[in-house]
Amino acid sequence: MKVIELHASITQSNDEDAKKLREELTQKNVCLVNLMSSPGSGKTTLLSRIISDLKGKVSIAVLEADIESAVDAERIASLGAISVQVHTDGMCHMDAGMTRTGISAMDLSNVDLVFLENVGNLICPAEYDTGAHKNIMVLSVPEGDDKPLKYPLMFQKSDALVISKADALPYFAFDVEKARERALFLNPDIKVFVVSAKTGEGMEELEAWLCTNLAL
Amino acid sequence: MKVIELHASITQSNDEDAKKLREELTQKNVCLVNLMSSPGSGKTTLLSRIISDLKGKVSIAVLEADIESAVDAERIASLGAISVQVHTDGMCHMDAGMTRTGISAMDLSNVDLVFLENVGNLICPAEYDTGAHKNIMVLSVPEGDDKPLKYPLMFQKSDALVISKADALPYFAFDVEKARERALFLNPDIKVFVVSAKTGEGMEELEAWLCTNLAL
Repeated sequence: MKVIELHASITQSNDEDAKKLREELTQKNVCLVNLMSSPGSGKTTLLSRIISDLKGKVSIAVLEADIESAVDAERIASLGAISVQVHTDGMCHMDAGMTRTGISAMDLSNVDLVFLENVGNLICPAEYDTGAHKNIMVLSVPEGDDKPLKYPLMFQKSDALVISKADALPYFAFDVEKARERALFLNPDIKVFVVSAKTGEGMEELEAWLCTNLAL
Repeated sequence: MKVIELHASITQSNDEDAKKLREELTQKNVCLVNLMSSPGSGKTTLLSRIISDLKGKVSIAVLEADIESAVDAERIASLGAISVQVHTDGMCHMDAGMTRTGISAMDLSNVDLVFLENVGNLICPAEYDTGAHKNIMVLSVPEGDDKPLKYPLMFQKSDALVISKADALPYFAFDVEKARERALFLNPDIKVFVVSAKTGEGMEELEAWLCTNLAL
C-alpha cells in the first residue's frame, strides 16, 4: 500500500488529459470506475464487499483519494487488493492528472478493474472528468432522498446511482421510489441499484453491471 | 421566504469582509452561527428542533445555502422563522460577501440569532471565514467516527462538534468516545454535543451553550 502526496495538475486541459488516460487504460484492457459520494456514505465498505465477492473472477485495484490519512487504503490492502492512497493537498476533488499520478504507482499487468474512490464531496468531484470509463455515485439511506434536488450535477454526471446502507431503511424516512424518480428526472440513463454491503442485498446486480463494463 | 441567486464575491479580502460583518452584527446584538457538515447529516432537522425548542425565548432567522432547490428554506419557513435561501452559483462554500448578501435580505430588528446553514461539504466551507461568531460542525452517526482523520481542518475550525442522529447509534458501528478523542486531538477547545433531534436527547445542553453565545 503506497501513499502519494499530490499537487495541482500542471496541464491546462483536464478534458484532454482525461480522454488520453481513458484511451490508454482501454488499450491495456483496464476499466477505470470513479466512485463519488458524500463523506461517510459507505464507499470503502462497498468496495470491500465487491473485492471479496469478485475474488478469483475480477482482479481489482483501488486508488484512494483523501485530504489526509490512509485509513481507507489500509482497509483495502488488508483484503489483498492493490491499494494506493493519494493525498490531494487540501483539494476537494480529483482531476485526470492526479488520477494518472495515482494509477502510475500501480502495477496494472494483472488488473481488470481500477476503482478511484474520490474525495467525499457531492459537489466538486462532479465537475472534473478523471479519465474514468464509468462514474458511480453512492447515496446512503441516512442522507435522505432529497439529495438529487440539491446536488443535481452529481446525478447528471453519473452512469449509476448506488443507494447504499439499504439495511438502514427501517430506521430512516428514505423513500427509495422518490429518490429513483428524482435521479431519473435529472438523468434518464442512470442505472439505479439499491444495496446493502452489510447484508449483501442487491450486490449481485451491481456486480453483474460492473462486469459488463469490463474489457475481459 | 426569499430565494437569492449569488455570484462570486467581488472583494479581494474575505478575511477583512468577514471581520467587518462580524463587528456589524455584534453592534446589532445579533449572533451569527455557521453550521457546516456533509450532505444529509441532519442540519435542517437540527435547526427545526432548535427553533421549536427556543420559541418565545430566542428569535431565530436562518440563511440556507445550497447549489439548487429551496427545500430546506421551505421547511424552516413553515416553522414561522425568518428564512432566506441563497443559491451559490455552483460554488461549494459560502464566503463573507455571500453571507452578507443573504443576511441583507433579512429584517434583523427582532432577531437574536442567525444560523447560516452552509453548503453540505466537509472540505471547502472550512476554508472561508463567513463572518460568523461561532462555527459548528455536525457529524451524523451513520457517517462514521473516522471523519476527524480525513477532514481535519473542519474540526480545527469549529467551536463545537454536534454528533447528530444519536438515536441511530444502536444500528451503526460508531464509537462516540473515539470520535470525541479524535476531535479533541485536533482541537482541544472544541465542545462536543451528542444529540438526537428526533428524540430530543442532548438538545438541552446544545441549546444552553448556544444561548451563552447570545448578546441578549
